[in-house]
Amino acid sequence: MSHQLHLGIGINSIGYLARAWPYRTGQRNDFINLEHYERLTRLAHQGRFDAVFFSDHPALMLDATQRPLHSLDPLVLLAVLGARVPDIGLALTASSTYNSPYNLARRVATLDHLSGGRAILNIVSSFSPRVAQNFGADPLPGRDERYRRAHEFLEVSKALWGSWRLSQQDSDDPEHLWDRASARDIDHHGEFFDVRGPLNIPSSAQGYPVIAQAGASDQGIDLAAQHGELIYCSLLNWQAAAEFGARVRARASELGREPGSVRLLPGLVVITAASYEQALRRHEQVSGAGSADGLLARFAQEIGADLSSFDPDAVLDPDLFKSDPDQSRPIGFSQALVELLAHEPLTAREIVRRYEGGHRLVLGTPEQVAHAIIEWWEAGLVDGYIIQLPNLPDDLQTFVAQVVPILQAQGVYRRHYAEATVRQRFGLPQPF
Amino acid sequence: MSHQLHLGIGINSIGYLARAWPYRTGQRNDFINLEHYERLTRLAHQGRFDAVFFSDHPALMLDATQRPLHSLDPLVLLAVLGARVPDIGLALTASSTYNSPYNLARRVATLDHLSGGRAILNIVSSFSPRVAQNFGADPLPGRDERYRRAHEFLEVSKALWGSWRLSQQDSDDPEHLWDRASARDIDHHGEFFDVRGPLNIPSSAQGYPVIAQAGASDQGIDLAAQHGELIYCSLLNWQAAAEFGARVRARASELGREPGSVRLLPGLVVITAASYEQALRRHEQVSGAGSADGLLARFAQEIGADLSSFDPDAVLDPDLFKSDPDQSRPIGFSQALVELLAHEPLTAREIVRRYEGGHRLVLGTPEQVAHAIIEWWEAGLVDGYIIQLPNLPDDLQTFVAQVVPILQAQGVYRRHYAEATVRQRFGLPQPF
Repeated sequence: MSHQLHLGIGINSIGYLARAWPYRTGQRNDFINLEHYERLTRLAHQGRFDAVFFSDHPALMLDATQRPLHSLDPLVLLAVLGARVPDIGLALTASSTYNSPYNLARRVATLDHLSGGRAILNIVSSFSPRVAQNFGADPLPGRDERYRRAHEFLEVSKALWGSWRLSQQDSDDPEHLWDRASARDIDHHGEFFDVRGPLNIPSSAQGYPVIAQAGASDQGIDLAAQHGELIYCSLLNWQAAAEFGARVRARASELGREPGSVRLLPGLVVITAASYEQALRRHEQVSGAGSADGLLARFAQEIGADLSSFDPDAVLDPDLFKSDPDQSRPIGFSQALVELLAHEPLTAREIVRRYEGGHRLVLGTPEQVAHAIIEWWEAGLVDGYIIQLPNLPDDLQTFVAQVVPILQAQGVYRRHYAEATVRQRFGLPQPF
Repeated sequence: MSHQLHLGIGINSIGYLARAWPYRTGQRNDFINLEHYERLTRLAHQGRFDAVFFSDHPALMLDATQRPLHSLDPLVLLAVLGARVPDIGLALTASSTYNSPYNLARRVATLDHLSGGRAILNIVSSFSPRVAQNFGADPLPGRDERYRRAHEFLEVSKALWGSWRLSQQDSDDPEHLWDRASARDIDHHGEFFDVRGPLNIPSSAQGYPVIAQAGASDQGIDLAAQHGELIYCSLLNWQAAAEFGARVRARASELGREPGSVRLLPGLVVITAASYEQALRRHEQVSGAGSADGLLARFAQEIGADLSSFDPDAVLDPDLFKSDPDQSRPIGFSQALVELLAHEPLTAREIVRRYEGGHRLVLGTPEQVAHAIIEWWEAGLVDGYIIQLPNLPDDLQTFVAQVVPILQAQGVYRRHYAEATVRQRFGLPQPF
């Protein structure tokens, strides 16, 4: 557990909430405009965020009532943003199912080198059949197979990242430009990959990129416990957060890792306004639901209930959201709701204010939001959050101007960047 | 044929010649230093080059007496350089054998968007077994199969780049953020790839990246004639250049392309000094041969001759360099020598001053070099050159300070960047 609050900012196109765009400022095409992303990254830097986080999936989302969520490739975009904005961590999401480890390890190592040790790699196994159709005739492999591949992908990547440990000292050997003995084949032969190596890039300032991981299925938690350094997850309730953290750290320990080398960073959707009441109205607006009744109608639809016979003030059955291990969509969001209801008897009217876009929702004044942020962190439940904001840049401007100064005044959050690499910033061990 | 001399600068690590490094200034580790590449790109911009060209292969070259030729991934490196340096074209090399078209098309489209239409994609089919071993247990496919794959790879890429043609106009549709009808599946099903599409990035300012191509085998020329817009090749002799250009353009015409939409940019290794004699000495030095006799000894070894019975003043037999269609190494360099000797009766003592690192060598004073550059271009043999320099940054500083001003004074070469995209700069047709 590190002794500083860590905040990442999720940069999901023009905002985290799919139907908030009518209420944002800027151009509709901002989702492919560099100026938009550069502005967000500069704002995040001004707000002293640990890192900008880009989620991704390589397919076009075809619902034109929503913003295209993932468009520009995050690896290339982050290379550009890192070249323009100093200090801030650069977290990219990439699929272990639809990349080859040599290419991806090399590209991320390049980002890590060129940014001076600021790369974070969030490996996902991909869950969309639409993505699978962009990469061949085979259907999406099952979850077990995808996670076995993700494990092997990270093992190969780490071996590659450590395969050439070139001294930074300039030698004066007249015959050799570099030390041949510093590079070694990895000779990996596994279920999915055969890779000889070595990588043609030496290890970076932080050894290798910080590994982030977001899966919440049993397989996802195993991957997190084995390889994850930053765990991005959905935690809707105090007890659920405590249990999840204990579970991941215990599994890490079983697998021989130092359990303190795992950082929990759940998603947090933040809606601020001048008063709590105004924040509620803003929630109704940016969610796309339009009103409190609209939120209930959307919830009824989500659980497949008939709105006419639906009692919004009845306590909900936790089994409502039980996930099926064979479901193709992410298990984490369903599971977080099951756990929330297991710990708190909530009605529909209450629960619709507790989460948005799958993650914990915090709404209120900047003071109320800052209090909620500090509370879980101070209790040691989490190491920080990935902040997800309805509209960008609007809500990031507000957060940086109004919430960050409170966190700084409380002494829990940095005023300046101090560490050279993101690995040091998160207090994570240097691999070599 | 465009009416301006085009110059690309090859940025191959710390210099084009593998054993020139003892004579360069800078640090040994410059091959992984961003400052080094940024400095080169700024120099190239100052010299008004059309583009920086990065060759690549995804494997470490293990001979430590040479500089590691390809280390940082050129896609990520060019994203950073494009973010730091305006105007200049960004040419990256990538393998069609060891990439998937959706990922690569998307990443290069991202580079193209973020750089405002400056991306150039040089597709290579890879020829090194060492590369194959980084991407699986299968051996390197044969040349025919690799080129069939390269063809299909570019067909799929172009279809993807045209699959979402979003208007740049901001609409005021209150229900839809973007025009759904602007995106279409490509539904490609071929020998190597099945790709549904659409790409999740709209077409860029230049439609799609400019396509470069370097293969000189029969298969390579077919790929160049079908898809190549910039043809990087080895041309050692006036007649050979005329014949090669005619051959590529005739084949392009057969394939239904406008033959004027092909730009020939052979490699040109430039060695300048205050006098021709000094340039000869410099050649002996940076080639690693050490002396005129050293050049002959290296040549004898190259052709497998016994130095003791070797007559450096005998006219050489053109069959000496005949390439084997089944050879694994690039055919272009052998072929260029065959054609040189077919057109000119040369001795070993003469031929060693005509090429270096596989490409045409021009050495002499800045005036002599500028004259040689202009001569072929003025005659319409070539559209320009990819300049390859023994040591970087040293020889680029010299070229920009001493050769470029002569070209500008002659009125054949730009003093300022005028066009918005590299496609316009090369006078190439806009695909859509």
